[in-house]
Amino acid sequence: MALIVKKFGGSSVATTEKIMNIAKRVLGEKQKDDQIVMVVSAMGKTTDDLISLARGIEKEPYQAKYQREMDMLLTTGEQVTIALLAMAFKTLGQPAISLTGPMAGMHTNSAHTKGRITDITPERVHQELDKGQIVVVAGFQGMDDRGDMVTLGRGGSDTSAVALAGALKADSCEIFTDVDGVYSADPRMVPGARKMKEITYDEMLEMARLGAGVMQPRSVEMGKAFGIPIHVRSTFTTQTGTMIREDYTMEDKDFVVRGVAHDDKVAKIAVLGVSNTPGVAHKIFSSLASANIDVDMIVQSIRNIEKNVTDMVFTVSTDDLAQAKQVMDKVAEELEAIAVLVEEDVAKVSIVGAGMLGNPGTAARMFGALSKAGINIDIISTSEICISCLVKGSQLKEAVNSIHDEFFSGN
Amino acid sequence: MALIVKKFGGSSVATTEKIMNIAKRVLGEKQKDDQIVMVVSAMGKTTDDLISLARGIEKEPYQAKYQREMDMLLTTGEQVTIALLAMAFKTLGQPAISLTGPMAGMHTNSAHTKGRITDITPERVHQELDKGQIVVVAGFQGMDDRGDMVTLGRGGSDTSAVALAGALKADSCEIFTDVDGVYSADPRMVPGARKMKEITYDEMLEMARLGAGVMQPRSVEMGKAFGIPIHVRSTFTTQTGTMIREDYTMEDKDFVVRGVAHDDKVAKIAVLGVSNTPGVAHKIFSSLASANIDVDMIVQSIRNIEKNVTDMVFTVSTDDLAQAKQVMDKVAEELEAIAVLVEEDVAKVSIVGAGMLGNPGTAARMFGALSKAGINIDIISTSEICISCLVKGSQLKEAVNSIHDEFFSGN
Repeated sequence: MALIVKKFGGSSVATTEKIMNIAKRVLGEKQKDDQIVMVVSAMGKTTDDLISLARGIEKEPYQAKYQREMDMLLTTGEQVTIALLAMAFKTLGQPAISLTGPMAGMHTNSAHTKGRITDITPERVHQELDKGQIVVVAGFQGMDDRGDMVTLGRGGSDTSAVALAGALKADSCEIFTDVDGVYSADPRMVPGARKMKEITYDEMLEMARLGAGVMQPRSVEMGKAFGIPIHVRSTFTTQTGTMIREDYTMEDKDFVVRGVAHDDKVAKIAVLGVSNTPGVAHKIFSSLASANIDVDMIVQSIRNIEKNVTDMVFTVSTDDLAQAKQVMDKVAEELEAIAVLVEEDVAKVSIVGAGMLGNPGTAARMFGALSKAGINIDIISTSEICISCLVKGSQLKEAVNSIHDEFFSGN
Repeated sequence: MALIVKKFGGSSVATTEKIMNIAKRVLGEKQKDDQIVMVVSAMGKTTDDLISLARGIEKEPYQAKYQREMDMLLTTGEQVTIALLAMAFKTLGQPAISLTGPMAGMHTNSAHTKGRITDITPERVHQELDKGQIVVVAGFQGMDDRGDMVTLGRGGSDTSAVALAGALKADSCEIFTDVDGVYSADPRMVPGARKMKEITYDEMLEMARLGAGVMQPRSVEMGKAFGIPIHVRSTFTTQTGTMIREDYTMEDKDFVVRGVAHDDKVAKIAVLGVSNTPGVAHKIFSSLASANIDVDMIVQSIRNIEKNVTDMVFTVSTDDLAQAKQVMDKVAEELEAIAVLVEEDVAKVSIVGAGMLGNPGTAARMFGALSKAGINIDIISTSEICISCLVKGSQLKEAVNSIHDEFFSGN
């Protein structure tokens, strides 16, 4: 007997036919005494459709004052899926019950549209499992202390699944997706990308943080924190995918670089001509933090050394762009900056690998590959196990391929 | 200062444009210190679309074992509307907040798909009103003691609105609809139908129970119980509609018959050849009651007087037909009945009026009108203030018009 949490994303549940197929597949793989918890996303394009609906009311529905209502709106997407999937199990003779995030005990903070799980009290889940039910839980959502619906932000269903697996002390968490594992680069962009059998939490975390769409970073953190092995596998085949765990169980360490990640959902904001004095950077970035906006790459460059004036350049997610611009316009006025510029045709390409630390030539090889392809680097940032470059969005595909060729060709 | 509950139905909120218009209208009519609670339904055909989705999983999604999941599914419809309407108020500069039924304190029993409100604890509604917010509440829904979503059944949003108005001790409850008041017959069916300025709870109750779509019977009961005046008025004009209250405030009592109601969402079930012995009727109707199915007209007729065998004929809502048939097939087997027949081409036409009691000729006039129009009567049932006839569904329009002509012509 095992307790397994299985998470299916939006494309896996896009139609009622696909929902029926998932129910059949899960029952087909279920061992007699297994306890199964399903965590699912909204069907296909439902979330996008709901956002379009909101735009019928207000063009910028992600502004702070609308975020609580956006969460009220968007949480309906998963609620539709759980009801249908529970019905699908029942039509197949399997007792099942759907639970919204709040019903499953998912507590969050009040950061609407990008909530964080603060606690999980899964008593109801256990109760229903003990009655022999498959429990179908809405991913991506929870409830704050006020009793309001809160979504976990993009990809939050993975986080829901892994966190719930942790709270339930599950044996494993399977993340079903439209790719069959974690690749050295996005196979849709790099035809020669190779599938990895295993990857560590830390490497996956870095890959995810850098835009590898397969897994949401916070979900990998949760896996690491709770020690839950995460099996990333395909919705459409039964073959083994990639196992994310603490350490490698087999020899698969040949590559200094483990993967090339990319992210085209970034935008660059430049605050031009601010005084190079203490407190300016704090002012800018604390304003963004107060608005719950994550900043990624940051560069400060000298504009006029005599007047001690600098430019502050940074990147944010395109989802946060409108709000970040608003916040920055206000801050720029207070700081008497020259202007706030926004650049949307940018993308980030990154390499990841725990082995990089002892290989000082890795960065040079990456820059060389981009240079050879005639691609200009806008911003560079590095951490212990990764190097990222901001490039023109229109050159992203070429950038990813040239770097992947550099590190993975001939294997 | 007044506390007013305003309810808008599905056709009034069918598009984001209509939702914006409602927000504008409500703000236009709002007095400075008014406290406004909005109760809304799902947008246009949303509920029907969700039911179609469910049918993609299971052809008969209203079977008992799926009902909890149907409620989980259908409650998303209103949740979408409340989020959008709250956003609409905010774009107009009016603080507003959406609350699901459970958040607004709507407690129900566990009769899924046809729940009843058991208690209302509207603390959160008062809190938000006191902050100066317009509170937008999802109609049609509540939560049972298990914490599960329960819908109130067809037309339940009216009930939500009036019951909430009662719990909040509101000054009035306005029901906005696609007609501009209560008519002596459905104006879509009877061109000469006349609008009434006032009607008593009891008459409206009878009209509603008999199928007059304007108001849901339970909502009128609630209004009567709490003494909340209900103003039925048009979404599309600002003119006064029909006021439902305990007594008339003006002379409007000329008509013995106050209205002609009709209902085409009925089906007839006949259990043929059951023994005419004590307990048989109880067996049949208690089985239906256990399955939460309302039975309307009932006739028992002799099939074979020597063998003491009778036929039991009754009507149910078409929504309940599939389930009722299932229940009856089982009961018929136990009672060794000859057969269970179902007839769907039936409809009910009724006349209502408190003055009927003292006018014994009223029934004869109704039957005469039908006879003159060549319409056969299948079942007749009467109560203190109404008379109903079951006729062929295809003859319904003719039936309603001939009766309306009989009682209202020349006025």
